[in-house]
Amino acid sequence: MDTPAPLIAAIEAGGTKFVVAVGSGPEDIKAITRIETSDPAHTMREAIQFISASARKYGPVQAIGVGSFGPIDLDPASPTYGFITTTPKPMWSHTAIVAPLHSRFQVPVGFDTDVNAAAIGEMLWGAGQECDPLVYITVGTGVGGGVIVGQQPLHGLLHPEIGHLHIPAPRTPGVIMPDCHCPYHKSCLEGFISGPAIAARWGIKGEDMPADHPALEEVAETLAFGLVNVILTLSPKRIILGGGVMKQAGLIESVRSHTVRLLNGYVNAHAIIYAIDSYIVAPGLGDRAGICGALALGLNAMVEARKA
Amino acid sequence: MDTPAPLIAAIEAGGTKFVVAVGSGPEDIKAITRIETSDPAHTMREAIQFISASARKYGPVQAIGVGSFGPIDLDPASPTYGFITTTPKPMWSHTAIVAPLHSRFQVPVGFDTDVNAAAIGEMLWGAGQECDPLVYITVGTGVGGGVIVGQQPLHGLLHPEIGHLHIPAPRTPGVIMPDCHCPYHKSCLEGFISGPAIAARWGIKGEDMPADHPALEEVAETLAFGLVNVILTLSPKRIILGGGVMKQAGLIESVRSHTVRLLNGYVNAHAIIYAIDSYIVAPGLGDRAGICGALALGLNAMVEARKA
Repeated sequence: MDTPAPLIAAIEAGGTKFVVAVGSGPEDIKAITRIETSDPAHTMREAIQFISASARKYGPVQAIGVGSFGPIDLDPASPTYGFITTTPKPMWSHTAIVAPLHSRFQVPVGFDTDVNAAAIGEMLWGAGQECDPLVYITVGTGVGGGVIVGQQPLHGLLHPEIGHLHIPAPRTPGVIMPDCHCPYHKSCLEGFISGPAIAARWGIKGEDMPADHPALEEVAETLAFGLVNVILTLSPKRIILGGGVMKQAGLIESVRSHTVRLLNGYVNAHAIIYAIDSYIVAPGLGDRAGICGALALGLNAMVEARKA
Repeated sequence: MDTPAPLIAAIEAGGTKFVVAVGSGPEDIKAITRIETSDPAHTMREAIQFISASARKYGPVQAIGVGSFGPIDLDPASPTYGFITTTPKPMWSHTAIVAPLHSRFQVPVGFDTDVNAAAIGEMLWGAGQECDPLVYITVGTGVGGGVIVGQQPLHGLLHPEIGHLHIPAPRTPGVIMPDCHCPYHKSCLEGFISGPAIAARWGIKGEDMPADHPALEEVAETLAFGLVNVILTLSPKRIILGGGVMKQAGLIESVRSHTVRLLNGYVNAHAIIYAIDSYIVAPGLGDRAGICGALALGLNAMVEARKA
């Protein structure tokens, strides 16, 4: 009889909801739940209780992976490693995430941004297999990007914050708030095309927009400016676009054609000139990219701990 | 008696000049020359003759490194690996660089972009030591960027082309050509701040500009938009700024302050908020970053060949 695959707990920590799961891989999720993101103590307690209850039923977890909204501290030498840091989200700034999990379960905890986690999930099991460098971008309540280089999530001074790339401001007639909606910047991606930015700038929610609304064309072109910059900086082998806003019918097709038009032949690569449909793609794991990525972070933490 | 360090030939292949050197490291350059970039056959022949003559004098070279203007083909599986590809430079498009060197000297040849080479040189011996990820940007006849991640130069679909990042267009009063000067794009870094773009847009050469010319402020702010995007995508631990335009007195200081202002506290890192003077820096190797980087590419090719 085969040894059963080790059980991992995964947390996709979002600003609106936490998804918590226990399983050994994307095809073997034993238990999964969704917790509303309230205050940190309450939310973390609920997550911990779900993991404990699942462990009693299915067996102990060998590691935990967390993909979190940010910014987060990823520097192992920092006293605030494993914290959510300067988020504007009420009550969540300077919140320890790794420490309470480690102290309760005494297992290795892998920790990264939600989008780096989604990128890892897609690289292992989704649309990003054999693509290195790989970029995963989400366009939803916020805009963010995860980056894989050399099979590792990219960290540096901090971590990528692709949602705040500065781009030429769109100037579509009919917009009621032409400015960027970001409290930090005057001309950044998130400030033009996040769900709340679209609602504020056009006075209508994304889900209520007719398919021919001019905002959609503007979102496509503005996001394409961001992708152009990502392509010219990271030269990824594939870009995956997830998040609620990207579910608008026809949007990804429009993003592809604006990206090709804006690059204007300068990046002379077959993938861009002849095969853009398989270069800019939807997540292979669909809405499960984030939680599967968190699971991958846990698996990786377990492997690293066994090496050490 | 110590075994002498192996001799490497290095070529910094630029659009205006080729620099060719033979040596074992930055402190041991045995011979160096400068060749005007004319047609490919003539230029490559001169480079090869210089290496041969130096080898007769100092001993055989064990490897060759080439940092080249581009775009170049870095895909080892491609039939045009080691070529300069779609450059607009007359006579140089689709020119083999690696093959004639390899066929003449029968030693390993390392090949990369001029800016990736400069980044490697700075990482090994200059201002980029212990900084990973590292970005080297040159602002001169063109604008380009080299990127190191995980101690390796970043390659992907192609290689970084940071000079063509799309940014909000500057709108300085007094400019005689407000548009971007790039033949491919309408709002890219190189089209606003390369030497030729400055000359065309302001009707005056950089070296003739007084220190209070409004173009200099515009160059600083425009480049800062590019650095902001690089920081938000790659999260480098240091950015090195080289090239002729960067020699303008006061320019790097102005780039630093615009970068901090545009980020506006969003990237909450000590290096940016408190130590920008040691985050955005001049090349430690000065004008030798490129040729030393080519030398490093040769050393690396030698080491890899011995492993294989």
